[in-house]
Amino acid sequence: MAKDIKGITVKKENFSEWYTQVIQKADLADYSAVSGCIVYKPNSYLIWEKIKHLVDQRFKSVGIKNAYFPLFIPEKLLQKEEAHVEGFSPEVAWVTHAGKTKLDERLAVRPTSETIMYDSYAKWIRSHKDLPLRLNQWCNVVRWEFKHPIPFLRGREFLWNEGHTVFATKKEAEAEKDQIINIYNDVCENYLALPSLIGKKSEKEKFAGAEYTVSMEFLMPNGKGIQGPDFHHDGQNFAKAFDISFLDEKGTKQYAWQNTFAITTRMLGIMFAIHGDDKGLVLPPQLAPIQVVIVPILFEKTKAKVLKACQKIKDSLSPNFSVHLDNREDYSPGWKFNEWEVKGIPVRIEIGPRDLEKNQAVLVRRDTGEKKSLSISSLAKKVGPLLNQIQDNLLQKAKSHLKKSIVKVTTLAEAKKQINDQKIVFAPWCNTSQCEENIKDKISGAKSLNSPSKQSKATGKCFACAKKATSHFYFGKSY
Amino acid sequence: MAKDIKGITVKKENFSEWYTQVIQKADLADYSAVSGCIVYKPNSYLIWEKIKHLVDQRFKSVGIKNAYFPLFIPEKLLQKEEAHVEGFSPEVAWVTHAGKTKLDERLAVRPTSETIMYDSYAKWIRSHKDLPLRLNQWCNVVRWEFKHPIPFLRGREFLWNEGHTVFATKKEAEAEKDQIINIYNDVCENYLALPSLIGKKSEKEKFAGAEYTVSMEFLMPNGKGIQGPDFHHDGQNFAKAFDISFLDEKGTKQYAWQNTFAITTRMLGIMFAIHGDDKGLVLPPQLAPIQVVIVPILFEKTKAKVLKACQKIKDSLSPNFSVHLDNREDYSPGWKFNEWEVKGIPVRIEIGPRDLEKNQAVLVRRDTGEKKSLSISSLAKKVGPLLNQIQDNLLQKAKSHLKKSIVKVTTLAEAKKQINDQKIVFAPWCNTSQCEENIKDKISGAKSLNSPSKQSKATGKCFACAKKATSHFYFGKSY
Repeated sequence: MAKDIKGITVKKENFSEWYTQVIQKADLADYSAVSGCIVYKPNSYLIWEKIKHLVDQRFKSVGIKNAYFPLFIPEKLLQKEEAHVEGFSPEVAWVTHAGKTKLDERLAVRPTSETIMYDSYAKWIRSHKDLPLRLNQWCNVVRWEFKHPIPFLRGREFLWNEGHTVFATKKEAEAEKDQIINIYNDVCENYLALPSLIGKKSEKEKFAGAEYTVSMEFLMPNGKGIQGPDFHHDGQNFAKAFDISFLDEKGTKQYAWQNTFAITTRMLGIMFAIHGDDKGLVLPPQLAPIQVVIVPILFEKTKAKVLKACQKIKDSLSPNFSVHLDNREDYSPGWKFNEWEVKGIPVRIEIGPRDLEKNQAVLVRRDTGEKKSLSISSLAKKVGPLLNQIQDNLLQKAKSHLKKSIVKVTTLAEAKKQINDQKIVFAPWCNTSQCEENIKDKISGAKSLNSPSKQSKATGKCFACAKKATSHFYFGKSY
Repeated sequence: MAKDIKGITVKKENFSEWYTQVIQKADLADYSAVSGCIVYKPNSYLIWEKIKHLVDQRFKSVGIKNAYFPLFIPEKLLQKEEAHVEGFSPEVAWVTHAGKTKLDERLAVRPTSETIMYDSYAKWIRSHKDLPLRLNQWCNVVRWEFKHPIPFLRGREFLWNEGHTVFATKKEAEAEKDQIINIYNDVCENYLALPSLIGKKSEKEKFAGAEYTVSMEFLMPNGKGIQGPDFHHDGQNFAKAFDISFLDEKGTKQYAWQNTFAITTRMLGIMFAIHGDDKGLVLPPQLAPIQVVIVPILFEKTKAKVLKACQKIKDSLSPNFSVHLDNREDYSPGWKFNEWEVKGIPVRIEIGPRDLEKNQAVLVRRDTGEKKSLSISSLAKKVGPLLNQIQDNLLQKAKSHLKKSIVKVTTLAEAKKQINDQKIVFAPWCNTSQCEENIKDKISGAKSLNSPSKQSKATGKCFACAKKATSHFYFGKSY
């Protein structure tokens, strides 16, 4: 496989082609024999394992437990909540046969698990003592998208967590919102180095079956918004459809209040896209499978000495960092530099015989390309702070790009101009589905992203239809 | 949910009913709306997470990397290896429609992933430098069994690891066998406390597509054998069917050599079944979600004091053990003892006001029921060794039961008598499919389990057909 690695041949401004090349050349994913389904290769899957672990630890620490529900959902169950089935049925993969036997009832391959889980919840929950019930599962889901698939960003099968929680009161249910969003945001900001716009989705864009949806929206290099983790407060919609009820302390039957929330493998693609540069991937040190790569400059006469020094450096760094010594002899140093740049390894250490004579090594940052000669003895002390600097720099760069890309507007004409100029606009809006349809008509590819909870009151007119604005929303082109 | 917990109402000797009650009453799993598919509840899923983590760590330490391949397999791919498709197609769940669209080609929901993975492997592997390729995935698989489903032991969807490795030579491929089996056996013996019979499966019972299969067979309380983790050496069967070939160092095209291996959620059921007793579950301390439960004996006057002492004990144990303080006030101590016994918690600490006056607590072992009064100050020192003793006792008990249950025989009549008496027999055998069919006819429910690699040479006659025996095999009734 290694033989085929070449540098990225287009600039990042040619985003779509750049992204396709990065995914393949950094060995992150491959297309499979099933259209729209990718293979998650070890270089990306290991990062997903880390994200999963970080989120899972945090879920467990607030009392959410993991379970696993069946992959299949009988058709009748899927149809129990009206808005939900409308939202999902166009994309459901249906199992109709087992071996040579035709099934009596078709089975949906889960597009999401509300309906199969809530059928169990209805059996399990009887008393207020059974609440809250806070379960989560990490699994695969299938949504048979007919749009053009893009590795990680849009595909027919992806991996995610789906949290499904049940509370006795609306107040308790809604109190979970900040807890969950804070967990997702902690992981996104401090590990993936990705800032986001956090707020409520519009009536039109909320989850099928939810009372409201809070989303985290990220800004892609091509100016498009993309939805990341989300949290849905379902009110009593599913509780009523599935009869999830309990006897309260007075013995009165009450319907329960529910939330659902998710983070998916889409975040991998968002992270690869946002931090990458013309040379390829740039990985945040907190998630990079390899944080430091050591590349020896080998000549016949000095090879043994240089390799020995490299191994010593590796041994000194390995207790604290993930370090790889690239001691292959049939590849040139230049070829290796290129490979590890394409793969986004945060720090490279180069050592040749002349460096060694001076007891030095060259330390190279992947994010800025900056090179520094340092004494070998100081490496163990310098690598940690450097990785932190890189981590911080990636977040700050992404934050400042996000900030610069947001423009306040008050008219549809301004919005159109800015959105077509790859900006996100922030505008007072009426939040009606009819108006959103109209905006989509007028600005090709645009839709509402979300509405931050902290904002000054929108007292004026809707930027699009001039009716009364209820709040400010972000709008942009979007995946 | 808690309200419904009652003790187990049948003895373990009535195994089938006992098992059904334990699964439900210890809150391990529940039936779902999809026949043959269960819900893995937190009490069992957390144990699966631990098993997964233990195996995964060990895989990573020997250089196996995780990836994730699509859930779906196009029908044409599944058919590429003849023995393989014959073995699996009767149990395949088929996706035929997406939304309202009929698919051009049916998609199998993976019963195992050889065919989808090897299609990619054929693209990726070109040179001897690309080998070995050692990938693994943790995922769900579906096999539409038409036999009676039993939670964890036999169902239509289960969770597993599937390792799929590729080597340049048969020698290297076969050298992986002991490495993998040792990993599985380490986890089974030292964490699940389960001994097994390890050996090669018969020609008839080997994996569909493999050259040979090595399995770990466990002995269930009803005398039936059950297959656990396995390792298949595929030779070049799949390599030829999928054209997984490479240029060796001389530039000559060679077909690769392959192995596959798996451990599944079936192990949960085996562990629950083997260690449990008339009172319910008995969990090995190494895997128990809760290792120590503290039950205060509460009276109105002394409640505050006793609870305070319990909390102090909890705090002293929590850094090293997983401890739960059951401070519910609306359940009696007796009710709680019963609940935690049904759930198999290894150690219980009871404290009432009279114990407290003497600065004592009562320590109760779940495995033997043994009770001891101890000074509170000595608890922190005693709990660790006690958990180790329990862990060891479970393994030794299972080992001695396995040993006692194996009987050497040399005739079919003896075999029949012993097998019907819930024994495993060990007999010289010819290892032909025809003879195995005959044995199955003669001893209802019996089949070959496996043949250990270390054994004295079988020089005599086959116990069943009197032809030449090639080696000794274990036979028994089996799942």
